[in-house]
Amino acid sequence: MRALGIEVEALSPEEARLAVVVGADHLNLHGTAHGGLLYALADAAFALLSNQTARAVALSTRIDYFRPVRPGERVEARAEVVHRGRRTASYRVRLAVGDRPVGQFVGTVFHLEAS
Amino acid sequence: MRALGIEVEALSPEEARLAVVVGADHLNLHGTAHGGLLYALADAAFALLSNQTARAVALSTRIDYFRPVRPGERVEARAEVVHRGRRTASYRVRLAVGDRPVGQFVGTVFHLEAS
Amino acid sequence: MRALGIEVEALSPEEARLAVVVGADHLNLHGTAHGGLLYALADAAFALLSNQTARAVALSTRIDYFRPVRPGERVEARAEVVHRGRRTASYRVRLAVGDRPVGQFVGTVFHLEAS
Amino acid sequence: MRALGIEVEALSPEEARLAVVVGADHLNLHGTAHGGLLYALADAAFALLSNQTARAVALSTRIDYFRPVRPGERVEARAEVVHRGRRTASYRVRLAVGDRPVGQFVGTVFHLEAS
Repeated sequence: MRALGIEVEALSPEEARLAVVVGADHLNLHGTAHGGLLYALADAAFALLSNQTARAVALSTRIDYFRPVRPGERVEARAEVVHRGRRTASYRVRLAVGDRPVGQFVGTVFHLEAS
Repeated sequence: MRALGIEVEALSPEEARLAVVVGADHLNLHGTAHGGLLYALADAAFALLSNQTARAVALSTRIDYFRPVRPGERVEARAEVVHRGRRTASYRVRLAVGDRPVGQFVGTVFHLEAS
Repeated sequence: MRALGIEVEALSPEEARLAVVVGADHLNLHGTAHGGLLYALADAAFALLSNQTARAVALSTRIDYFRPVRPGERVEARAEVVHRGRRTASYRVRLAVGDRPVGQFVGTVFHLEAS
Repeated sequence: MRALGIEVEALSPEEARLAVVVGADHLNLHGTAHGGLLYALADAAFALLSNQTARAVALSTRIDYFRPVRPGERVEARAEVVHRGRRTASYRVRLAVGDRPVGQFVGTVFHLEAS
């Protein structure tokens, strides 16, 4: 996270909010933000939030990319709880530049010690 | 949809709400609602909502199942717009029995005629 | 499955092969096979294969649709094991009309009794 | 890729094979390889393969994690073509340590210039 310049803006048991500004190092062949950067941002928000209340390991994730993000733009990831069960839990992370959605991530985890 | 007993409760360009009561025909080997029933319910909400503003064909979907649904329980699917672009759009459908989440579906479509 | 006309062609602990011929009842607004039909076919293959060696419940699935399937075409689903662990397992189902791929499904299950 | 120590072992229009050795920098809170490392490896294989025959941007991906990967283990990603259409294409990437599967990734792209 630090290497990518990702910042944690808010973290509680119900929400994680992280952000990154797209830099020259983050670009793909097409001159827009590499999908891997948006994934890393969403995944970091997911990991932080899912480990707030349990020891959690990721089982499965999905990301959808809606539109290109350009150098200098600031992407924010807002992770929320969709469902927290005893053995598994599911989270959603919305990715946006300002008010404009640029992607969506969903992820499920397995709880190492059922609480 | 009719064959499965699915009912449309609300439909607008921004939301679709459908529901089904789990019957004896809908059960799997474990005596709970077949995953295919929940999928069919979510998929119907997704199809109705995504065709409200464009001619849309599904590209990719994902469903996560949170817990078993029992005979006699009424499952509601609430579909919402996550992102509507010119060529593609993304939707999320929450599945719940009363206040209890039982699953989540996400789907993306391709617009046959860009508007 | 019976209601949809799905036939089981082969079933072993390592593979399930099912097929359906697209009929007049299976069409969407665009006159091609409803995505829900292809999903039901893939999901049936996944359910049969995943229950061959354990009592399994679906956790999460994904389907991608590659191209439209027309009335009268016969779609075959070939399910294979990607990974079988103690607690979870993953399967892949390829959908094709003859040699032509029309979709891909992946699914993971949770084993009710770890063996 | 270079920062993570990912190596390209083989690349053709039909296949990409990349590998990484899990190092001390790649570990999560549980002392095993961070999911983000496996994702980055699979995503790099997907990006290389999908850009072999077209200018492609990622639309949607999914990864499933099968078991923990430990420090010193070498993870190989083998990407293959599932379907290449005019406008979209789908790829699968298998992740393994030796013969042991550790994850599976699927991804779809949009072709910027239909060929």
